[in-house]
Amino acid sequence: MKSEIIAVGSEMLTPFRQDTNSLYLTEKLNEIGVTVSFKTIVGDRKRDLVNAIRAALARIDILVVMGGLGPTEDDLTREAMAEALALKLRREGPLVAALATRAAQWRIPLPSNNLKQADVLEGATILPNPNGSAPGQWLDTTFQGHRKLIMLVPGPPGECKPLFDAECLPRLLTVVPRRTIARRILRAAMIPESQADKLLAPIYTAYTDVETTILAHGGDIQLILLCSKSSPAAAKARVDELAGKLEEALEDWLYSSDGESLEQIVLYYLGLRQATLAVAESCTGGMVSQRITSVPGASRSFLGGAIVYSDTLKHAFAGVSPEMIAEHGAVSAEVAKALATGIRLRTGATLGLGVTGIAGPTGGTEEKPVGLVHIALSSAEKTESVEKNFRGDREKIREWSTQQALDLLRRRLR
Amino acid sequence: MKSEIIAVGSEMLTPFRQDTNSLYLTEKLNEIGVTVSFKTIVGDRKRDLVNAIRAALARIDILVVMGGLGPTEDDLTREAMAEALALKLRREGPLVAALATRAAQWRIPLPSNNLKQADVLEGATILPNPNGSAPGQWLDTTFQGHRKLIMLVPGPPGECKPLFDAECLPRLLTVVPRRTIARRILRAAMIPESQADKLLAPIYTAYTDVETTILAHGGDIQLILLCSKSSPAAAKARVDELAGKLEEALEDWLYSSDGESLEQIVLYYLGLRQATLAVAESCTGGMVSQRITSVPGASRSFLGGAIVYSDTLKHAFAGVSPEMIAEHGAVSAEVAKALATGIRLRTGATLGLGVTGIAGPTGGTEEKPVGLVHIALSSAEKTESVEKNFRGDREKIREWSTQQALDLLRRRLR
Repeated sequence: MKSEIIAVGSEMLTPFRQDTNSLYLTEKLNEIGVTVSFKTIVGDRKRDLVNAIRAALARIDILVVMGGLGPTEDDLTREAMAEALALKLRREGPLVAALATRAAQWRIPLPSNNLKQADVLEGATILPNPNGSAPGQWLDTTFQGHRKLIMLVPGPPGECKPLFDAECLPRLLTVVPRRTIARRILRAAMIPESQADKLLAPIYTAYTDVETTILAHGGDIQLILLCSKSSPAAAKARVDELAGKLEEALEDWLYSSDGESLEQIVLYYLGLRQATLAVAESCTGGMVSQRITSVPGASRSFLGGAIVYSDTLKHAFAGVSPEMIAEHGAVSAEVAKALATGIRLRTGATLGLGVTGIAGPTGGTEEKPVGLVHIALSSAEKTESVEKNFRGDREKIREWSTQQALDLLRRRLR
Repeated sequence: MKSEIIAVGSEMLTPFRQDTNSLYLTEKLNEIGVTVSFKTIVGDRKRDLVNAIRAALARIDILVVMGGLGPTEDDLTREAMAEALALKLRREGPLVAALATRAAQWRIPLPSNNLKQADVLEGATILPNPNGSAPGQWLDTTFQGHRKLIMLVPGPPGECKPLFDAECLPRLLTVVPRRTIARRILRAAMIPESQADKLLAPIYTAYTDVETTILAHGGDIQLILLCSKSSPAAAKARVDELAGKLEEALEDWLYSSDGESLEQIVLYYLGLRQATLAVAESCTGGMVSQRITSVPGASRSFLGGAIVYSDTLKHAFAGVSPEMIAEHGAVSAEVAKALATGIRLRTGATLGLGVTGIAGPTGGTEEKPVGLVHIALSSAEKTESVEKNFRGDREKIREWSTQQALDLLRRRLR
């Protein structure tokens, strides 16, 4: 069955804000085998809203309208739906009472305008919203002679998501043919995008019953595999078969077969090897540490480290001598190695990581251009370093450098 | 004039990817006085695409269709537009030649399927795309008796944005009544959201000709003021008048009158005072440093610092004694102050910042719950600290702590 999500709110038609609830609703609809064929974003104008609702009902079976259920004059979803379907709205006594109780509890006045939240479409079921004042509505009706399932859900994410899960999904499941979705997420690091495409496209395009989405960002690629079948075992088998072939093709670029992040994998290996880590970051300015410490429990393996932005601190915290910096420059393989070794010795960590580079936009020379980065990893046994020339702006260069540093760690630890 | 943006691509109907080009196009359209009344996202199915195009042309004057212009079988925008308008497509010789030249340069074969990129709608103008193989198209036509301006633009952001700027905007300006947009962005830190609303709403709602958007995230609020008038001076005057009143209401929560980020402001003040900064971060794990170093030129005032995740490093890098940690706990005002003072003395910076807290999800106790954070700032003259109890998950607590740390710096420096 085909569905459409309409997100209501003029703020989502500005350059500054986007609908994001629909990503969550799409995931939930997909999981029960419902495809989202259209998404529409419309502002708080009743005429536009009626138009969007009619356009949607003419082309799909299931319609979720999100937002515009609040108490203000701009909240027009109920009125627009009534007009689009030529249905009456009736004010529900128990809902009016609930609004009054809520207002009394919060010791706020109840303006008469607020009572519109108690208006319900003829024939609709009220969907309780424990997290807000406006309930949702469920309507099983016909439009131009065809059956349509319509849901009105509130806009704030904290109300929309729980209400959709608790009230809409169970009702949809009684109507929608039962299907199961199997899902797998593969992740790989630092593979060139063109190479990924050449390697992977011939494989996944042959699996027409598995939907493959590839997301690439900052040296990380995610392959999301989805398969919807009536049998759970059949769906899982197809996804696993394709995943196996893709894993083989990705060779050692692959770091995760089930969606874990690169920092999670690094921490997993550190725990497994009972190793500890310390870092000395220059151009990444804390990004490596920040990603590692974003994982709960990171403190078991991550000791910390130093942001050695100035040459003085490269010396003070990682023991890199001013002579070495004068001889090779702060951005050099020698200094990266000295940072890695120095921070390891200063902190007593098993592994030391050093990052130095030129993030730009200024500071580049012909010999050492913006984007040049040296990353080194040191243990008691050996110290190695890699040199990279990343392209893009300051933020991109820092992101890629961070990803490369974590990937160097992963490859050493695995 | 009213417009609609249609984003074409099945990947944007998954839970994993969103259209973001439309934010850019919306900004550009708004700047020439064109409102975006609808956004539609549709997959790579011709029937759905024709449906979306017809629905759009029936309700707006200006239509931008983005994506679906590439060489693959899934790229159907040209064909769908031809069907929706009952127009023919003609294959353009010069475009075929350009595709052949491009393929030869890149030493790749030119499959016959690729030639569809040379198909142009009857009456359309070809819009050159120097960044990709598929050109855009501009069509000034009628639909159901009304004049419609239609643009087909490529989907990849690196092709879409420059083509829209260079080819679409100048053509739109010859048709659209000339208006000017004045814009101001005010920013404030750490103001409670409910308080912001109570303070600001009565002010900006009175300016019905200025569109005010409020974005709140992680202790930061942005107020974006837009006013569109035929006279540039009149638009600017209205925006400035409202901005003045909002600035007054925001008192010292306001940190920026023109959109600069908090880290930019902190670095601006550091430069002005010829002061240097070093940080010792525990729970924020590098986020403070990362935000500061995201600003080009940060190295002029930011020396670096330490990620003192383990107690050993709190001692090694900031001189916090194990006795003090044993007595007060690692998360305490005393340790925050010792971190700030210690990192200042070790690095020779003018200012030292110390952050320690419990980011969770585990590690909290009844006395010191998850979300408890102490932040201290030390100079030769004085060392002060603030205690906060932030709510939310690990990421939120870290974001709020970072914002609070930067705001403490700003308040001291200004």
